[in-house]
Amino acid sequence: MSIGNVHTYAVIMAGGGGTRLWPVSRKERPKQLLPLLGQETLFQSTVQRLENLFPPERILVVTVEEQAREMRLQAPEIPEENYLIESAPRGTASVVGLAAAVLHKRDKNASMAILPSDHFIRNRDLFHYLLKAAFDVAANGYLVTLGITPTQPSTAYGYIQQGEPLDGNYNYPTYKVKSFKEKPDDQTAQKLLRTGDHSWNSGMFIWRADIILKEIDRQMPDLGSALKKISAAWGTDEQAAVLNENWTGLKNETVDYGVMEHAERVAILPAGGLGWSDVGMWSSLFEVLLPDMNGNIATNSSLHLAHETHNTLVYGSNNDRLIVTIGVDDMVIIDGGDVLMVCKTDQSQKVKDVVVHLKKHHQEKYL
Amino acid sequence: MSIGNVHTYAVIMAGGGGTRLWPVSRKERPKQLLPLLGQETLFQSTVQRLENLFPPERILVVTVEEQAREMRLQAPEIPEENYLIESAPRGTASVVGLAAAVLHKRDKNASMAILPSDHFIRNRDLFHYLLKAAFDVAANGYLVTLGITPTQPSTAYGYIQQGEPLDGNYNYPTYKVKSFKEKPDDQTAQKLLRTGDHSWNSGMFIWRADIILKEIDRQMPDLGSALKKISAAWGTDEQAAVLNENWTGLKNETVDYGVMEHAERVAILPAGGLGWSDVGMWSSLFEVLLPDMNGNIATNSSLHLAHETHNTLVYGSNNDRLIVTIGVDDMVIIDGGDVLMVCKTDQSQKVKDVVVHLKKHHQEKYL
Repeated sequence: MSIGNVHTYAVIMAGGGGTRLWPVSRKERPKQLLPLLGQETLFQSTVQRLENLFPPERILVVTVEEQAREMRLQAPEIPEENYLIESAPRGTASVVGLAAAVLHKRDKNASMAILPSDHFIRNRDLFHYLLKAAFDVAANGYLVTLGITPTQPSTAYGYIQQGEPLDGNYNYPTYKVKSFKEKPDDQTAQKLLRTGDHSWNSGMFIWRADIILKEIDRQMPDLGSALKKISAAWGTDEQAAVLNENWTGLKNETVDYGVMEHAERVAILPAGGLGWSDVGMWSSLFEVLLPDMNGNIATNSSLHLAHETHNTLVYGSNNDRLIVTIGVDDMVIIDGGDVLMVCKTDQSQKVKDVVVHLKKHHQEKYL
Repeated sequence: MSIGNVHTYAVIMAGGGGTRLWPVSRKERPKQLLPLLGQETLFQSTVQRLENLFPPERILVVTVEEQAREMRLQAPEIPEENYLIESAPRGTASVVGLAAAVLHKRDKNASMAILPSDHFIRNRDLFHYLLKAAFDVAANGYLVTLGITPTQPSTAYGYIQQGEPLDGNYNYPTYKVKSFKEKPDDQTAQKLLRTGDHSWNSGMFIWRADIILKEIDRQMPDLGSALKKISAAWGTDEQAAVLNENWTGLKNETVDYGVMEHAERVAILPAGGLGWSDVGMWSSLFEVLLPDMNGNIATNSSLHLAHETHNTLVYGSNNDRLIVTIGVDDMVIIDGGDVLMVCKTDQSQKVKDVVVHLKKHHQEKYL
């Protein structure tokens, strides 16, 4: 199957909130809608990454209404009917199911790539190549995952263990999946890195709509039956009402645990060199943006005067405000509107502790 | 001579600018007018420190017009005629001379304590005791300096070497001055600290007005003759015109080098335990303000959420702005209006390099 195939679709998952990039990401301003990479937002670069691979008519976005307004402005080329609106976030299993049901009703031969809206990928050519190869594998009825070859013993991701090479003649090394593993502790992460057969779970999946719907029916029958009702009403006057009616009662479940872990034919393409990052915390920006010769990064139009400063990220919020650093090493400085954060780079995962603290002390205005 | 003596006066020198506490201190907002210590400014606390020692009528302030406006608001108890206004800063020799000339015209028996407006002194009782003792020495015709017993090999101050104990019966150990020394380099500072007979030059002096005027006449005859003209016109309609006319041509000279170094009868009272600081750079605030149990200081009404943070100073500028630090040690964070500065505490003397850089690159708007 070639990517030029008119039955291939991209589904961008964009409903999440998340506070790991607090204080810039907020309840009403989630990560994917921020211009973290300079001019464009992560959502925009996710859409642009699909150029020459999918025409806008074959790109779907699943999100919530609050975010859809902004997304329509950021990616006006995507047709209005391709925005699928969740009345409330119900987990990736529901998102994937909804997209599959809608696409399958539109096109019985639909295949789809599930893509998070808030990740970064430096090597676009390799990404295109991998997607094409994955669609070829999916054509044979496999649920395909893109794995990321680990570069460090990260505890921030789930892991996927590969098994035997998949029978068949494919354009990229492809394996059966042996097991899915939850985010490990430090020691386990060290071990998994050494095994050489574990990949990070990137949250990118490629499959045929009919196959994933069958797996949902088998493993999550409640979701399956809700999707059937939604599908029946899709395109009628009842579409919105039936969707909302069947949506709020759904179990909040990820596609990984709800479907993939016990699915029958699961394959993995382990990808190294993709330059992938989930931009999961401030320190990730050092992987994503290009530091200057001292390792410093000044982003979001910040005016940075760096004096004896190294490996330091400055995120401004005001073109005219001068940010001066003297004798600073390995720091992240976020000059937000109502919050200033100064954080040692290797402690940036602790932003979540601060968010918890603020919630507990009823300081929601800063969240 | 008792301090209750109606012939004793305090002269607060407050004309200076200085950018060592940039970005908070600015050309138009010098250090002494900033609330660095919490509610009150350094100038206000200098005035308050004189309570019960000098009535406001016997406190003079020498400053420039731009600063006088703000000072009159900050210390309204000082009578208007006690503000001596320099048309332009001409160095401490001129300031001291002007104050001495004005006081001597007002009171032929005047003695005066010269006090910088922007220093901090924790131990007010000892300060009062020392001033009283110094006035007793000055009554005998000595030019008296208050020396500060060094606590570290500082290169930021001039040094005064003490000689033999002064003959006479005084209430505090008092010595002849052997020599004045300029700010030393690192190695010299180490040596001076070990000698045990060197004090920091605090810039605080006590003397009789007639004696200092005589020394000025002898060593700086141009200044002496200008002061005579100013003195003759003082209290007449010509006062301001004659002052301005004679002021701008004066040589810009410090009293230390212009007068003290070659004066005839110079004495020193070396003071330990005064809790003195010239608040010369941001790191000084750790000596002046009281850190919490983690060594942190949040000042100027800043809202600081410190997470795994130690020995860090946060200076806010907005009551509602939250400043979060994570994994931060030994830093100074100054959240000014148009400038944010993050500086390793032990590098805070490098603020001056940044100021030089900004001048050179025509960024005066930040100065």
